[in-house]
Amino acid sequence: MTTRIDKALIAEQNAKLEGFVKEDYEALGNKLAREDINIDDITAMAEEFQIAVPSWGTGTGGTRFARFPGIGEPRNIFEKLEDSAVINDLSQATERVSPHFPWDKVDDFKELKEFSDSLSLKWDSINSNTFQDQAGQEHSFKYGSLSNTSKESRDLAIQHNLDCIEWGKTLGSKTLTVWVGDGSNHPGQQHFQSAFERYLESMKEIYAGLPSDWELHIEHKMFEPAFYSTIIQDWGSNILAAMELGPQAKSLVDLGHHAPNVNIEMIVSRLIQFKKLGGFHFNDSKYGDDDLDSGSLHPYQQFLIFNELVDAEYRKQEGFGPNYMLDQSHNVTDPIESLMNSAASVQRSYVAALLVNRPLLTQYQNDNDALMASNTLKHAFNIDVSPILAMARLRKGGAIDPVATYRASGYRQAVAKDRPSNGQSGSGIV
Amino acid sequence: MTTRIDKALIAEQNAKLEGFVKEDYEALGNKLAREDINIDDITAMAEEFQIAVPSWGTGTGGTRFARFPGIGEPRNIFEKLEDSAVINDLSQATERVSPHFPWDKVDDFKELKEFSDSLSLKWDSINSNTFQDQAGQEHSFKYGSLSNTSKESRDLAIQHNLDCIEWGKTLGSKTLTVWVGDGSNHPGQQHFQSAFERYLESMKEIYAGLPSDWELHIEHKMFEPAFYSTIIQDWGSNILAAMELGPQAKSLVDLGHHAPNVNIEMIVSRLIQFKKLGGFHFNDSKYGDDDLDSGSLHPYQQFLIFNELVDAEYRKQEGFGPNYMLDQSHNVTDPIESLMNSAASVQRSYVAALLVNRPLLTQYQNDNDALMASNTLKHAFNIDVSPILAMARLRKGGAIDPVATYRASGYRQAVAKDRPSNGQSGSGIV
Amino acid sequence: MTTRIDKALIAEQNAKLEGFVKEDYEALGNKLAREDINIDDITAMAEEFQIAVPSWGTGTGGTRFARFPGIGEPRNIFEKLEDSAVINDLSQATERVSPHFPWDKVDDFKELKEFSDSLSLKWDSINSNTFQDQAGQEHSFKYGSLSNTSKESRDLAIQHNLDCIEWGKTLGSKTLTVWVGDGSNHPGQQHFQSAFERYLESMKEIYAGLPSDWELHIEHKMFEPAFYSTIIQDWGSNILAAMELGPQAKSLVDLGHHAPNVNIEMIVSRLIQFKKLGGFHFNDSKYGDDDLDSGSLHPYQQFLIFNELVDAEYRKQEGFGPNYMLDQSHNVTDPIESLMNSAASVQRSYVAALLVNRPLLTQYQNDNDALMASNTLKHAFNIDVSPILAMARLRKGGAIDPVATYRASGYRQAVAKDRPSNGQSGSGIV
Amino acid sequence: MTTRIDKALIAEQNAKLEGFVKEDYEALGNKLAREDINIDDITAMAEEFQIAVPSWGTGTGGTRFARFPGIGEPRNIFEKLEDSAVINDLSQATERVSPHFPWDKVDDFKELKEFSDSLSLKWDSINSNTFQDQAGQEHSFKYGSLSNTSKESRDLAIQHNLDCIEWGKTLGSKTLTVWVGDGSNHPGQQHFQSAFERYLESMKEIYAGLPSDWELHIEHKMFEPAFYSTIIQDWGSNILAAMELGPQAKSLVDLGHHAPNVNIEMIVSRLIQFKKLGGFHFNDSKYGDDDLDSGSLHPYQQFLIFNELVDAEYRKQEGFGPNYMLDQSHNVTDPIESLMNSAASVQRSYVAALLVNRPLLTQYQNDNDALMASNTLKHAFNIDVSPILAMARLRKGGAIDPVATYRASGYRQAVAKDRPSNGQSGSGIV
Repeated sequence: MTTRIDKALIAEQNAKLEGFVKEDYEALGNKLAREDINIDDITAMAEEFQIAVPSWGTGTGGTRFARFPGIGEPRNIFEKLEDSAVINDLSQATERVSPHFPWDKVDDFKELKEFSDSLSLKWDSINSNTFQDQAGQEHSFKYGSLSNTSKESRDLAIQHNLDCIEWGKTLGSKTLTVWVGDGSNHPGQQHFQSAFERYLESMKEIYAGLPSDWELHIEHKMFEPAFYSTIIQDWGSNILAAMELGPQAKSLVDLGHHAPNVNIEMIVSRLIQFKKLGGFHFNDSKYGDDDLDSGSLHPYQQFLIFNELVDAEYRKQEGFGPNYMLDQSHNVTDPIESLMNSAASVQRSYVAALLVNRPLLTQYQNDNDALMASNTLKHAFNIDVSPILAMARLRKGGAIDPVATYRASGYRQAVAKDRPSNGQSGSGIV
Repeated sequence: MTTRIDKALIAEQNAKLEGFVKEDYEALGNKLAREDINIDDITAMAEEFQIAVPSWGTGTGGTRFARFPGIGEPRNIFEKLEDSAVINDLSQATERVSPHFPWDKVDDFKELKEFSDSLSLKWDSINSNTFQDQAGQEHSFKYGSLSNTSKESRDLAIQHNLDCIEWGKTLGSKTLTVWVGDGSNHPGQQHFQSAFERYLESMKEIYAGLPSDWELHIEHKMFEPAFYSTIIQDWGSNILAAMELGPQAKSLVDLGHHAPNVNIEMIVSRLIQFKKLGGFHFNDSKYGDDDLDSGSLHPYQQFLIFNELVDAEYRKQEGFGPNYMLDQSHNVTDPIESLMNSAASVQRSYVAALLVNRPLLTQYQNDNDALMASNTLKHAFNIDVSPILAMARLRKGGAIDPVATYRASGYRQAVAKDRPSNGQSGSGIV
Repeated sequence: MTTRIDKALIAEQNAKLEGFVKEDYEALGNKLAREDINIDDITAMAEEFQIAVPSWGTGTGGTRFARFPGIGEPRNIFEKLEDSAVINDLSQATERVSPHFPWDKVDDFKELKEFSDSLSLKWDSINSNTFQDQAGQEHSFKYGSLSNTSKESRDLAIQHNLDCIEWGKTLGSKTLTVWVGDGSNHPGQQHFQSAFERYLESMKEIYAGLPSDWELHIEHKMFEPAFYSTIIQDWGSNILAAMELGPQAKSLVDLGHHAPNVNIEMIVSRLIQFKKLGGFHFNDSKYGDDDLDSGSLHPYQQFLIFNELVDAEYRKQEGFGPNYMLDQSHNVTDPIESLMNSAASVQRSYVAALLVNRPLLTQYQNDNDALMASNTLKHAFNIDVSPILAMARLRKGGAIDPVATYRASGYRQAVAKDRPSNGQSGSGIV
Repeated sequence: MTTRIDKALIAEQNAKLEGFVKEDYEALGNKLAREDINIDDITAMAEEFQIAVPSWGTGTGGTRFARFPGIGEPRNIFEKLEDSAVINDLSQATERVSPHFPWDKVDDFKELKEFSDSLSLKWDSINSNTFQDQAGQEHSFKYGSLSNTSKESRDLAIQHNLDCIEWGKTLGSKTLTVWVGDGSNHPGQQHFQSAFERYLESMKEIYAGLPSDWELHIEHKMFEPAFYSTIIQDWGSNILAAMELGPQAKSLVDLGHHAPNVNIEMIVSRLIQFKKLGGFHFNDSKYGDDDLDSGSLHPYQQFLIFNELVDAEYRKQEGFGPNYMLDQSHNVTDPIESLMNSAASVQRSYVAALLVNRPLLTQYQNDNDALMASNTLKHAFNIDVSPILAMARLRKGGAIDPVATYRASGYRQAVAKDRPSNGQSGSGIV
């Protein structure tokens, strides 16, 4: 594990900042104490917070127009895990990795599990892929996978998902996430109802193969790769499908997969209420499924989503316990840096949401005191919780400043030597 | 009934155009015959087509900035019915009127029923109104109605809906449409889940008061009057509410109530599939709930929606039979003209959708022949069915050219004398 | 001035919080000192910051569906000024008021000027109104004002703007803001080019009447009240019009007047670059021109706009010096509370933008270090500048907590007695 | 030219339909005669109508997720020209081809010109490409091209555009179209003003290299590949850049490159008015830059754009004469079929716009008769001009039904044998 980050380096880097962190942490602690909040309780919860990284996120992303690779990109799942270990070592918030098949398929999954164990990494939700054709694939997904008019194509897609479950069992995963690009580009190309019926029939076969302690997460998306209609185009189709399948089926929310202006935090609330919130793909976006770094554009939206999540925890909402994952495309940054940064950004929203005075908020809501209700949320959001995040990392052995420490480590330059480009992207972007 | 349109005038106006209509009708009949379509069968179906007009649509609309009234606006439900009778006399497609309470409330509903009978008009869905406070109202709807935190306000809103049902029974209506403006303008103002729970609880009380042969239609809307969150913000919340309530509850689609870019025809298909399509509020829009004349901006979208509706009829989809209604705001046109014009526009989409070769379309869909599937729809859409629409009106005693005949009648100028402005709008716009 | 806020009350309320403010201010000062920032310099700049309030914003707003009035609403410009004085007394950031004519028209403008002087209030930009017809108006604006096909209507609109300039001279204003609702609801209703030519011709007449030390601000808006096309629909038409008119004509940006997803901060940069940024109407929105409280939904967008503004100051950009104004509709809150809160929200963005390390940012930009450039902005944004804002108010004699002090004053209840409702809104909403 | 379409086949296919076309043409002619329109005049104008095809459009497109190739795809510009010749032979509306460099770069441009001459094809606008890195490229465009912070990268991009002009001279083109993907993914990544200044400086160097009878077309795009900001994000930045450069610089409108809900026909009008409309990239879209087949989703919008174009011709607007081109991505159809179909779709809008009664429309506009103005456009749109389009093709030697004739020819199957896949796309999609 020569490429791992040296603990001594972390300590050396932290030493430069530790004094300031403690000073700020104390000041913040005093401030929170006035509101009867014990900062160490919050920090302890921040330390517990975990968000999975996507294996494919460790490669440089791109668009249909171009991909501009970086140096030292991981070429296979083992190298992606190495990078993921670096991310977790420094950020201390990403101990789980979410794989994507067949991109991450290996001959020996036990060997893969041993390798991830050796890096102290665990496996999050398994992502199946039926939106691409693989070399030599007998029946194409060009016109759909689980909803294809051809039974052969559907069966291939079903079998792939069942394979994913098998591979996931070996890795210790407990969730299968199904996102399909099925849809149409022309009015009339597809019979909406027939296609949805075929989709549901296929999904029932997959659901039937699900171990009893697994969940099946359905991901909706408004558009892309299909540009007129998409089979699970929104949370409405998503929750209806999940309800048709049964209690182990839930809905997954990717923040970039909605129509413009949609109130996503309200969708989150609805899914919580109907016991169907499976998990998240966190990212940020301005236009479509831009897959930008989480919280980089809309930090308050991210906070409002966590306001719903923390509220559900606070209310001990039945059946609540979503998976958190980053799902981003890093086109102009070092993926390791973006993933560390984004994990901390999501963690920031979680921590800030913990600071909301919920009994007071409830009172304002009951009194229809809109301004003070709004200010109650804003008050928590405006608190700079950076010292808590830094302290949580410090206490767990991570880096106070993950990006600076990473840069100081020379990791990327080091792996660049070991990983001559094979001309392909680890990100799955074509 | 001195204000009604003189049959002789209609005949005289029609006489000028009848020759051309017959010539075009014959040419189109020949063309359709090549595709094994009997034009008279289509015309007969066009004659059967009916779409309700909203009582409030007969008044000039406006915006929060201004309302510029026209002359001779109806000042009460009796005058609105007079105008509606004109619309139906000329267009022959709008024999039903949808009232709005309390705007159209009268002391004696039997008298109102007799008046509408005398005009050969029937009553469509009853619209309740809990998005405004009425003079002297004891408990305000400022912070919501069916979902208000105050039980008094909720009870008031429930009772109003129960009253609407009673009034509707007298009028012979069979549907109650519930649209509420409940929502919030500030993050935190409302607890999403609690509010939705209160809404469902209130709706259950209304549902309990529904006669067994009635339907309850729920209308969703993304925003306005609430600008951060709306309780039934989309078809997802809508269908979940309808499912919670029971089989008599269905979802109503207003074309202007969705997020930008949303595929509305697909939502229509989903509601059909899950036996929850209750009806439509037809209008057109470019930005928000613009309430423009139906089909004036997006005629192909309107056609694609009717493609779904005709397909459901064609497939004899169980539980299918939605209400059709116009819901428009006529800010710069004579409402009577816009309503006649819009009824014909919707009828045009219906007729064009009847011309789709469905077995051929199915074959293209099964073959994934996207281009020819698309062209099959476009082929039907491109056929100019104006002669069929004109012939349908002619055969039923209406006007070949409703707007020209209306203008020739001098109706508006005549009623302007009888209806001095009372400074208020019949449109309900404040 | 019995309704003004008692200085003793402010002092009493401040006394409760002053200790905490000083403690937090000191901690923040220490933190900023590490970055070579003197907190008192920042606080001094915060004290200088001013944003105008709109006279009409002191009344409760509404939508086309309803307006739910509050108690004690101002019924004329004198009462609006009383409320504005309260806002400025407590927030110390709103010494200017922007009037709207003819809503605020008086017989004696000298008397009005003396009254505002007595309240230590100044006059910001004059807003003309040609989007409504006034009682008895000879030529209607129903089909447009400055671009109307009727010369009589255009001349009326031109004259009203020239009148506004005259009234503004007496009040000491230096800017005329022109927003028109001109546009169309139907394709074909208006000839786009002819209408824009008429608009430009009318504007040239107004421009010709502008004193040499005044500016003419043009406000663009995508839609509403016109729902198909609007004459100045975006910043493109806006800047072209401003360029046609001359150097005293500039563009005004209302944050809620753009298409979904548009990058507003980039538009701000373009207007700065071309020396055409006249000013702002600050508010927040999610869907359309929602006119929500500034920064209540998108605080980071507000910060990014101020990042451009502070950057222009920092670069001493030629011809830079925009007007800042709030333009909000307060439908569910006390307008005084919302305006104080929003002024502070905008001030927060300004102060945070002052904390951006610009030389460092420039270096990251030159190096294409996207992540660190982004983090440099986020670092400033995440700093909780509440202590600076509170200290700025405290040092100027305002309230540490404006809303709490206002509530403690009982002002609203007091004026409610003096201002029995006249059934009309001071907000201009119909 | 063994792969060309056999004239005899066209004749044979036409023979089956010619009788119907003549019958429909005569009926339509009679109908138009009533409106004093001579159908043959319109057909003559339809015959003149030309729209260029993009060389890259002949290859199957794709998304960042996948590309599903078809059979017989062209592997180089010569094969793309062969396909283009087929398109023009059958559609008779696409005699020009627009190349894309370096995709279509050859060693000997004279040879390429001779080849295109042999196919009776001409060359439309040259498209430069600085949104991708080419193999071995010394200075990357990862962080921008014409606006890159690195002078080396900028110079490379400038030189490429100057090269394009040289190549275009040999081919007989008269236009260079510049679209760049320059922009940013993170707030702060780019200094908006500095970047735009660098862009303008680079463009001035390109403009200086433009022959005096050429035009330089600037293409704006809201987003993608950059997802936070794009340097020429809208028509506002576009026209300002064109004005800075000079009279030979104009703006190009791609229908898919705007914010949601934007009124594109109004932008077209503005560009016409300011003498800056350079040309079009026609396609259709629902969500973003979907690059769907022109007119497949929004036929009325396409008509409204042509209403502006035909109106400018009608008014003999100075400096008017835009280039028309298709720019589509054919992901699920045979590109040849889609391009023929789309050319006819655009032609349909042009022909329908010719049928608008402009003097009558002007009168309705002057009278503010919104309904009849709208109906005047709709009347023209609703006329089924298919017989005119078919007759225009027939008279020029093309196919009455291009798709059916193409399928009957077996062209695709034939070329599939000659063009074994090289694993790369002719569409430029990565």
